Amino acid sequence: MQTNVETFIGCTASFAEAKTVLFGAPYDSTTSYRPGTRFASRAIRGESFGLETYSPYQDKDLEEIQVFDSGDLELSFGRVDLALADIKAHTAEILAAKKRPFMIGGEHLVTLGAFDAVLEAYPDVHVIQLDAHTDLRQAYLGAELSHATVIRRIWDQIGDQRIFQFGIRSGERAEFQFAKNHTYLQKFNFNGLTEVIEQLKDKPVYLTIDLDVLDPSAFPGTGTPEAGGVSFETLLEAILDFAKLNIVGLDVNELSPPYDLSGASTALACKIIRELLLAIN
Amino acid sequence: MQTNVETFIGCTASFAEAKTVLFGAPYDSTTSYRPGTRFASRAIRGESFGLETYSPYQDKDLEEIQVFDSGDLELSFGRVDLALADIKAHTAEILAAKKRPFMIGGEHLVTLGAFDAVLEAYPDVHVIQLDAHTDLRQAYLGAELSHATVIRRIWDQIGDQRIFQFGIRSGERAEFQFAKNHTYLQKFNFNGLTEVIEQLKDKPVYLTIDLDVLDPSAFPGTGTPEAGGVSFETLLEAILDFAKLNIVGLDVNELSPPYDLSGASTALACKIIRELLLAIN
Amino acid sequence: MQTNVETFIGCTASFAEAKTVLFGAPYDSTTSYRPGTRFASRAIRGESFGLETYSPYQDKDLEEIQVFDSGDLELSFGRVDLALADIKAHTAEILAAKKRPFMIGGEHLVTLGAFDAVLEAYPDVHVIQLDAHTDLRQAYLGAELSHATVIRRIWDQIGDQRIFQFGIRSGERAEFQFAKNHTYLQKFNFNGLTEVIEQLKDKPVYLTIDLDVLDPSAFPGTGTPEAGGVSFETLLEAILDFAKLNIVGLDVNELSPPYDLSGASTALACKIIRELLLAIN
Amino acid sequence: MQTNVETFIGCTASFAEAKTVLFGAPYDSTTSYRPGTRFASRAIRGESFGLETYSPYQDKDLEEIQVFDSGDLELSFGRVDLALADIKAHTAEILAAKKRPFMIGGEHLVTLGAFDAVLEAYPDVHVIQLDAHTDLRQAYLGAELSHATVIRRIWDQIGDQRIFQFGIRSGERAEFQFAKNHTYLQKFNFNGLTEVIEQLKDKPVYLTIDLDVLDPSAFPGTGTPEAGGVSFETLLEAILDFAKLNIVGLDVNELSPPYDLSGASTALACKIIRELLLAIN
Amino acid sequence: MQTNVETFIGCTASFAEAKTVLFGAPYDSTTSYRPGTRFASRAIRGESFGLETYSPYQDKDLEEIQVFDSGDLELSFGRVDLALADIKAHTAEILAAKKRPFMIGGEHLVTLGAFDAVLEAYPDVHVIQLDAHTDLRQAYLGAELSHATVIRRIWDQIGDQRIFQFGIRSGERAEFQFAKNHTYLQKFNFNGLTEVIEQLKDKPVYLTIDLDVLDPSAFPGTGTPEAGGVSFETLLEAILDFAKLNIVGLDVNELSPPYDLSGASTALACKIIRELLLAIN
Amino acid sequence: MQTNVETFIGCTASFAEAKTVLFGAPYDSTTSYRPGTRFASRAIRGESFGLETYSPYQDKDLEEIQVFDSGDLELSFGRVDLALADIKAHTAEILAAKKRPFMIGGEHLVTLGAFDAVLEAYPDVHVIQLDAHTDLRQAYLGAELSHATVIRRIWDQIGDQRIFQFGIRSGERAEFQFAKNHTYLQKFNFNGLTEVIEQLKDKPVYLTIDLDVLDPSAFPGTGTPEAGGVSFETLLEAILDFAKLNIVGLDVNELSPPYDLSGASTALACKIIRELLLAIN
Repeated sequence: MQTNVETFIGCTASFAEAKTVLFGAPYDSTTSYRPGTRFASRAIRGESFGLETYSPYQDKDLEEIQVFDSGDLELSFGRVDLALADIKAHTAEILAAKKRPFMIGGEHLVTLGAFDAVLEAYPDVHVIQLDAHTDLRQAYLGAELSHATVIRRIWDQIGDQRIFQFGIRSGERAEFQFAKNHTYLQKFNFNGLTEVIEQLKDKPVYLTIDLDVLDPSAFPGTGTPEAGGVSFETLLEAILDFAKLNIVGLDVNELSPPYDLSGASTALACKIIRELLLAIN
Repeated sequence: MQTNVETFIGCTASFAEAKTVLFGAPYDSTTSYRPGTRFASRAIRGESFGLETYSPYQDKDLEEIQVFDSGDLELSFGRVDLALADIKAHTAEILAAKKRPFMIGGEHLVTLGAFDAVLEAYPDVHVIQLDAHTDLRQAYLGAELSHATVIRRIWDQIGDQRIFQFGIRSGERAEFQFAKNHTYLQKFNFNGLTEVIEQLKDKPVYLTIDLDVLDPSAFPGTGTPEAGGVSFETLLEAILDFAKLNIVGLDVNELSPPYDLSGASTALACKIIRELLLAIN
Repeated sequence: MQTNVETFIGCTASFAEAKTVLFGAPYDSTTSYRPGTRFASRAIRGESFGLETYSPYQDKDLEEIQVFDSGDLELSFGRVDLALADIKAHTAEILAAKKRPFMIGGEHLVTLGAFDAVLEAYPDVHVIQLDAHTDLRQAYLGAELSHATVIRRIWDQIGDQRIFQFGIRSGERAEFQFAKNHTYLQKFNFNGLTEVIEQLKDKPVYLTIDLDVLDPSAFPGTGTPEAGGVSFETLLEAILDFAKLNIVGLDVNELSPPYDLSGASTALACKIIRELLLAIN
Repeated sequence: MQTNVETFIGCTASFAEAKTVLFGAPYDSTTSYRPGTRFASRAIRGESFGLETYSPYQDKDLEEIQVFDSGDLELSFGRVDLALADIKAHTAEILAAKKRPFMIGGEHLVTLGAFDAVLEAYPDVHVIQLDAHTDLRQAYLGAELSHATVIRRIWDQIGDQRIFQFGIRSGERAEFQFAKNHTYLQKFNFNGLTEVIEQLKDKPVYLTIDLDVLDPSAFPGTGTPEAGGVSFETLLEAILDFAKLNIVGLDVNELSPPYDLSGASTALACKIIRELLLAIN
Repeated sequence: MQTNVETFIGCTASFAEAKTVLFGAPYDSTTSYRPGTRFASRAIRGESFGLETYSPYQDKDLEEIQVFDSGDLELSFGRVDLALADIKAHTAEILAAKKRPFMIGGEHLVTLGAFDAVLEAYPDVHVIQLDAHTDLRQAYLGAELSHATVIRRIWDQIGDQRIFQFGIRSGERAEFQFAKNHTYLQKFNFNGLTEVIEQLKDKPVYLTIDLDVLDPSAFPGTGTPEAGGVSFETLLEAILDFAKLNIVGLDVNELSPPYDLSGASTALACKIIRELLLAIN
Repeated sequence: MQTNVETFIGCTASFAEAKTVLFGAPYDSTTSYRPGTRFASRAIRGESFGLETYSPYQDKDLEEIQVFDSGDLELSFGRVDLALADIKAHTAEILAAKKRPFMIGGEHLVTLGAFDAVLEAYPDVHVIQLDAHTDLRQAYLGAELSHATVIRRIWDQIGDQRIFQFGIRSGERAEFQFAKNHTYLQKFNFNGLTEVIEQLKDKPVYLTIDLDVLDPSAFPGTGTPEAGGVSFETLLEAILDFAKLNIVGLDVNELSPPYDLSGASTALACKIIRELLLAIN
């Protein structure tokens, strides 16, 4: 008789045979507005069984690729430093085994833990961020480690010309001004993404998708819904393009299941994860 | 003093004078993922009074046509065979009176009961299916009668070149392969529908609309939301085109009201039903 | 130690220094279908803090303009006449101080109270209405003062060629016929709005936005969702165009927060209000 | 083929054969705090089918008594006078046929319409009110016809020593003082009810049950939940005692289904109605 | 790196070392009224981590006993016979290993599958049922295998004087009459339970707890809430008494998590399971 | 024209004239299980207007006492140290003005900030805690500042025989053992509270009420509902007894409004606050 194993649908490879390793970072301790992303990774695993493993978009099947799901980290609420250290350590362990880490957030701050490990493994890593928000503040409510500062903390480490932001439609004036000088920032849509992909195709890339980049009509289940986002089709097209990149680490974050009782947001997140897994494999 | 009669708005004809007969099949016993479509027909009747009877799209009014609403069948949960037999008998009674049956599901399996009666009355019937899912499995969880097998069970009876599927974006690889050989299947959208309508215009047609063909942004209130569906406008345009067909029976299914607390999905279903009633009259 | 002042984000001017004065009319006593708009103004104030004050669409910031938020009126449920009188008096006080009134509804009937005061101050006022519904009935359920009659009551006072209706997709046949003779009515979309703006640019204009003009996919949080509405982008574009007009009073109404638990509808309403405040300033 | 008749479970008698006539008054236009009771009567009819017709408390069955369900009145939102007149006329029609009216509210104000008809038929009628609130204000928000004034309006007509209030735990100080001089008011519980029943057993009695007399733990689905109410068992015991009275008219009001998504409040209301129907028959 | 194992809190024993084996039967295919119990076992596992493993009621800790959680069965919706056969086979496997099966439903029908296996292992088994409903119908909606017939199906096999029912407060008159002749049935409460426990203490006992035996104030999250149930304290006291019995198999069923968004019903179910595990160990 | 001031109902005194000062600590950053208490203080202010200012329990009225509501603190999510420092500073300012601080949480950790200021002003302060949970851990998830450690942190400062815990029914075995040696802990109920009040009547007392001490039937709107709690009446009786104490500071915490859509939990919290304000005045 077997014990109860729960994974994302079709992700039944052993750690040894996997090329990609999924894990959850159920954390939203610094979320200042509306919490709930801590529930994302468990909801995604459960709801993934409403999906098929087969993608008619790519004509590929999860059962044909090798993914290991290592479950959720147990992260310290109230000790952000400990939480980020645990995420970094887990990511580093995956990288040390020559596998690609794929993290499911959680608030966007969790990206920092994973990115830090990726940066050590790939010092030349570049970042593509799909997001509604700039996340470029120096500090937020006195905290330097915050969902609102996460890309700024990455910039602290890798500096100019390494960060590419798309779909951005919210931030303080000062953040947009910072971006003018220090990042590549495309407002509102994904115009220019094809060119950026072309430009980065020989570089290691860390991909971070804040799902609030989607329009709230497609994705209401998030803490800070911002009207005017991209459609599912636009995001899907981008994902198919990411197949051209060397993605060495990635995350999908900011699903907050309690804010979409219909489950459509969770189902969409599952589909995005399936398409990402199939595209980058 | 009158007893309490409840109908879809404007559907107040007597059975004798009606050309179309509405009825509900509140059933979701084989729904394996998220139930709730059993609540659709009653919700639709109640919420239809938030609509007007007049359609500015068609410049027609429900008060000018003759529709009878015979209410909901009481179907056996746990005995799928009995449930389908009851649906078939009710549909046959409508057809025997030379009227057009219009069923409100329920899970998609209910289509089989109504279709079986229509097939007896119109042996040359063709099927147009608008749906996110292929519904072409041979069996599902050991059951041959299931929401996931309903179109396959229809194919068992009418064979190749009689089934036209549009908007399909989910299924197993084997189902898509089956469709290649045995049905007309248009992935993702309604491209080609105009031609199919032209081709079928002299045939009796059974129309089955699984409302999950719509994008979840427009229609989150369904058991298995699949991102990437068609818009309300696309579906409306198709409905207006169906006026060219000889539709001898039809159904609208898979609304699950509990999954959309805003009521927008139910309201949309009501509008689709109004436009269908006006278009096919 | 300060007492607890709550305003829409960034609207911290004193009454004396303000050019625009926000106030709430939390009223839905005549709403016959699904109530809840009474909760809109308080929800909007609270949720506005999920927004930024800066608009990347207009490159303007609420902190750079002068808006006073006078809070919510306490209106008589059950005495529509008293409620409208209170709204009119408050609006008149704002106008007397040479400021622009900006009301947050509430059901659409509240427009009548504000409009009556504006008409006294600007006898030549014209009306632009963005709405899913005609609101042109003579009476509804025996009541002449109703959400379904509000534009007809305005027409009673200003007559033909002064009312411009856009996005309309629901009403009785008789209402559409009335509109043919007495108002400018654009069905389904905003076609022709640019020309109307051009035509009215030297007139005082009262702008009333029933948010159900939006498609329910973008804005499910309203009492009577009508599929087939305009997108957020279309509405935003219209708002940016309204900068060309001399808007002497305006309102945004029919958000019903309880019908969208995700908060996306409230967040969208906040964004619309921000963009309006910045555009008309 | 039958049209769709919907009644409270087991209430299938014809009007002619019925001793009691149920009807709904779906109205909450003067509700100032949280609306929703307009949805009660339709929800109760639908959910009554989750009940059995048999009561193990009374060993009686709805199928053995004669009740007619005349459905819901369509009442004017925004014209309280019209709404009350329609309720009064319907109640009078039932009384004229020598039957007992049983109204399902709606806000508590609807009691006034029914009571007025009962008073004309039974000038000596006494009133028993089970309620959390005194409802004794002279006016509320400028309105004399309001849920908060309904018992005061009844007192206006029948004066002192005819009104018996139980379970009261909320009101202004002035209301409690008014009660001291003009009504029998029992705070918090039903102590003394047995004596009052004994005292009134030869009088015609109008019974009005505001379901918020129950503790919110048992009945959260109401607009103004007041902790500290009576239990279901206490209310049931009172109902069984009411069998000793000559109840000539009655109502059950203030269920607001949207505030209890579990449906437990609606189910409890159904059970109370079943027990009342069986007890007073 | 470990794969993702999810169990009820503290149930981390291996199968070999376990005395009790938990498993879920996520099934509600015959539920005719309001479905949702299929979601119970997964919700219970997740929410169990909001509990402590230590019980201050019994001064015992889950970490001190040996329980194995074998996860959820995948049961056939639409083929009740297959579903029950799978439950029976799984239960038999546990019994064959000389362990005690503890099933988490699901609708009450699942009890039949587990009971059938227990009956084969313990031909002298007696049944204690805590429930709001008799579940004694011969058939329901034409189906002999139904949540409403489950105890009758057990009686078919073991006959009179082997079934003890407590807390019953809903059923048809005929069911109560059947009980008079064939079972021990205590209406409304648990009076007599102590004596029954004394009487059965040398027998093998199958315990089935339909959680709707609880009052809906404590447990609203169930398909058919019936006011007038027992309190948590009463149920807890019974559970502590069950320690005197030789319970050879048991189940807890009819939690429907979607009907209690507060999570309090799921949390209570978790606590009941913890106390049962500690009491019967 | 007035700006928009929002206070708890009836709390309209100026700071200077007030004896008690209300403020909100909308914080739940360390909440590890289910967040949401950050929304409590704003919800309580809004919903307090569903209450009357008059208490029939005490025959007192909020309009007769002097309370100032200073609104909500803006606390740093992600920097627990900063958040507690801000709470302490605000509390100290109130105490310095010789007023009594009354804080509305928030997670239970916020008590620490307020208590620290009270301890400086009243070195001999004793603590009464009404709670479901011991909150006595040394650390939780690596954090010493956590909702699960807050009473331990208070003990660190004041040591044995100064902390009195009632209603406790959840914790680790080690916490209960700690309590045996270091605090007064009454499991499950308030037995002994009268004696403790008598014993402390000459001491300054800090009162902290975690509302989850209530049974979830009365109060489902909290993050960690624990069946088996006290009733509203029991808590009310305790509050009336607290009038005998010299309460120098107090808080009410752990209401999580999103978990009770009925609003009954928020309404109960409002009533508790009203009764506390009237009792301690």
